[in-house]
Amino acid sequence: MDKKIILLTNDDGIEAEGLYRVYSELKKEKTFEVKVIAPDKERSAVGHAITVFNPIPVWKEKRDGKFFGYAVDGTPADCVKLAVKAMLEKIPDLVISGINKGANVGENVIYSGTVSAATEGTVYDIPSVAVSIDNIKDPDYSFAAKFTLKMAKKIISVGGLPKKTLLNINLPDLSEDKIKGVKITCQSNAKFNDYFIRRIDPRGREYYWMDGEFVEVAKNENDDYCAIKNGYISVTPVHYDMTDYSKMEYFKKWNIGKEL
Amino acid sequence: MDKKIILLTNDDGIEAEGLYRVYSELKKEKTFEVKVIAPDKERSAVGHAITVFNPIPVWKEKRDGKFFGYAVDGTPADCVKLAVKAMLEKIPDLVISGINKGANVGENVIYSGTVSAATEGTVYDIPSVAVSIDNIKDPDYSFAAKFTLKMAKKIISVGGLPKKTLLNINLPDLSEDKIKGVKITCQSNAKFNDYFIRRIDPRGREYYWMDGEFVEVAKNENDDYCAIKNGYISVTPVHYDMTDYSKMEYFKKWNIGKEL
Repeated sequence: MDKKIILLTNDDGIEAEGLYRVYSELKKEKTFEVKVIAPDKERSAVGHAITVFNPIPVWKEKRDGKFFGYAVDGTPADCVKLAVKAMLEKIPDLVISGINKGANVGENVIYSGTVSAATEGTVYDIPSVAVSIDNIKDPDYSFAAKFTLKMAKKIISVGGLPKKTLLNINLPDLSEDKIKGVKITCQSNAKFNDYFIRRIDPRGREYYWMDGEFVEVAKNENDDYCAIKNGYISVTPVHYDMTDYSKMEYFKKWNIGKEL
Repeated sequence: MDKKIILLTNDDGIEAEGLYRVYSELKKEKTFEVKVIAPDKERSAVGHAITVFNPIPVWKEKRDGKFFGYAVDGTPADCVKLAVKAMLEKIPDLVISGINKGANVGENVIYSGTVSAATEGTVYDIPSVAVSIDNIKDPDYSFAAKFTLKMAKKIISVGGLPKKTLLNINLPDLSEDKIKGVKITCQSNAKFNDYFIRRIDPRGREYYWMDGEFVEVAKNENDDYCAIKNGYISVTPVHYDMTDYSKMEYFKKWNIGKEL
């Protein structure tokens, strides 16, 4: 039987622990062939950036003296594009992006390189998941890696995911016995309450640094933010049709065409 | 009466003709005060990237010997964040991103710096529009600029837009008499049929260049791509809740929690 090709990428970079931990777990499944193609360094908050005007260097990366995967001087979305269109001999059966250090919930989803790599998978109609853990400092990846393998096997066993829909998975940083279960959630309105520090550089020029804290505005127990904060794994079906269909009739009533 | 603050940005850079043409048009409306805060250079295809790990330099830019606006060594989304949270004294009444050289329709919306700047406006509950013209070479901005002013006045006159919904406006590159009207559209599945050229650099290292052509897969006369190709202005209500609500029940039936 042909092995299933799993493309593994992330936005924390090819040397990130989260990627290696899920790689090691996925390797246990002998029907999987895991291909690592990931950014050479951390690319957080790059959103769905792609590299259009520059060449994208690619090189082999070793780990413990053995070939591990390809490092790409590009964004997470670049990695998936390159893998599918140029580097892999076969279209992957599944794209896994993660495990990201830090949750990708609420408004973070629009800035997330982790989610963008999975989105790029769905652009090519490949089943794709983004996996993140809610701790930006020193998360315990053990259970998250095991859960990712379980989800990968489930997705392969049912023949994939609905076209153009990825799963955005976020786990609380808890041990298996503390996790309450899994919730299918919607994207919350949790957001960065961001602010800028203004400074003057040694040559007298103005610059700003962004900082902020993550807060939820309206609480909804069925959203991604509440799920992880209440000890559940959050699984959100995400697509990239950003049309706000609920507002189409409203704007039709504006009769914009008549004013031309 | 207080003037209405219009924040103008783009992703083609502060020196782009499309930005200057719409700036000149907006200046004709004496009840508007136009503030230009835009990237220092072209930032196309940056998606919704924001600058988190680096300082963001900002400086004044002149045009014809007079102060024109602020150049930001950052992304379009950075510009809006900075404007709202640090640089402007008052929250703008409207964010305009454009006029972009090249359409932002279909799958392009997820890569678009132009749309991301408008999205960032809606993050802060500010009415926001992205404006693009379907010609990447040498578009005639005359009518697009006039139409943008008309839309800006309309949005201000009705007291804004529904919260969290931006308008993604795309115009065909036609003169006013050739344009057939305005359509309220949905995001199409038009996409880049992309491919990579593989090369070896002078030091023997591998690199790739991306290229591609834009194609529509399934035709739908109510989508953004068909509208502009048929001579209509496309106006798409866009939001950033990327939850695919239609798939939530399907995934609930997976009973993922039970398998923990």
